[in-house]
Amino acid sequence: MKIELHKPILDLNDRLAAENRSLLDKHGIFVLNLMASPGAGKTSVILKTIELLRDRYHIAVIEGDIAGDIDSQRIREQGIPAVQINTGGACHLDSKMIRKALEFLDMNKLDILLIENVGNLVCPIDFSLGENARAMILSVPEGDDKPIKYPGIFETSSAIILNKTDVMPYFNFDEDAFVASVRLLNPAAMVFPLSTTTGNGVEHWIEWLVAQVESMRLT
Amino acid sequence: MKIELHKPILDLNDRLAAENRSLLDKHGIFVLNLMASPGAGKTSVILKTIELLRDRYHIAVIEGDIAGDIDSQRIREQGIPAVQINTGGACHLDSKMIRKALEFLDMNKLDILLIENVGNLVCPIDFSLGENARAMILSVPEGDDKPIKYPGIFETSSAIILNKTDVMPYFNFDEDAFVASVRLLNPAAMVFPLSTTTGNGVEHWIEWLVAQVESMRLT
Repeated sequence: MKIELHKPILDLNDRLAAENRSLLDKHGIFVLNLMASPGAGKTSVILKTIELLRDRYHIAVIEGDIAGDIDSQRIREQGIPAVQINTGGACHLDSKMIRKALEFLDMNKLDILLIENVGNLVCPIDFSLGENARAMILSVPEGDDKPIKYPGIFETSSAIILNKTDVMPYFNFDEDAFVASVRLLNPAAMVFPLSTTTGNGVEHWIEWLVAQVESMRLT
Repeated sequence: MKIELHKPILDLNDRLAAENRSLLDKHGIFVLNLMASPGAGKTSVILKTIELLRDRYHIAVIEGDIAGDIDSQRIREQGIPAVQINTGGACHLDSKMIRKALEFLDMNKLDILLIENVGNLVCPIDFSLGENARAMILSVPEGDDKPIKYPGIFETSSAIILNKTDVMPYFNFDEDAFVASVRLLNPAAMVFPLSTTTGNGVEHWIEWLVAQVESMRLT
């Protein structure tokens, strides 16, 4: 009961992802593939990350959406380069789209590239973009049962942000049960409860991201 | 920049969907295909609908999830037949899965079949299941900009439920802007702001659903 993606499409994607990876490596750019459902707060996390790291690193953003460019406009208003990809109907970015988008960025002046994938807990999983790390966001209103229902995205992410903790009092969300079910799927993943609205907990996410960027530079 | 679904897959799906439709028609069963992001409240809307219509109609549910069966368990606890489909990795249901699930239901004792699609604003759009109507749910925490970013699902839905209106005070959600952008995409769609938690507004959704069921019976 599963429609298989045609293997040639995934093979081609992986080959182009490896090319992206070596191109970005050559320029010492750390690339994060950020995934989440629509409305979980991908753009808000990116804006908060920019605010806290812009004095330390050169940052750029690639924005993936089915349609529209309101998110990349919000990024550009902060004086940060942003390339908008509209997928038309596709529910994820792929490595070919990223390759194309890279042509619009000055890679000589870049330390961190944040890629906001299309809002989806399923489709992006199989498509490597050439990233160094994957992070995902679940927001409190989505419910604590999501690891059970969408295991793949929790398994593939090195960092899992639990966003909108400021509205925890208004939702029936069991944080301990959530963390326990994440641990079952992915014992190594870091979990960062935070609120981009209040700023609570954001520092731990930032510390993790900085550690990733710096450890890449050592290798 | 769009990976096209192979046309033969969609043709086959449409053919099986038409077969489902005529099988269900023969039994006078109204079928609703309910779509939304993960955590928007699909199961809560289904449980509320069951609560308010179970004395008037025989209802059954087909639950679509990547993995797990907690939602169908919740439905069965209400004494309502529920068939769980686990798609493995696929981000939507298809008509073949529904055909298989129908074998587990007594169609002679059924007035309304509610199908909860996999949590996704993109993938389910292209796959008819043999339904009479499509409804979608957006929840307040997801944000008022979703019609701009995910136009396809708003275009294809006859009814659009705006759920979790009880938490409106804690989110920056412009309801007028939301309704206006829905209107641009789909002037005929009905929009139902409601809260399954407080019950506010649910009666309008129920009235619409009853009208659909009854008008199908007249034809």
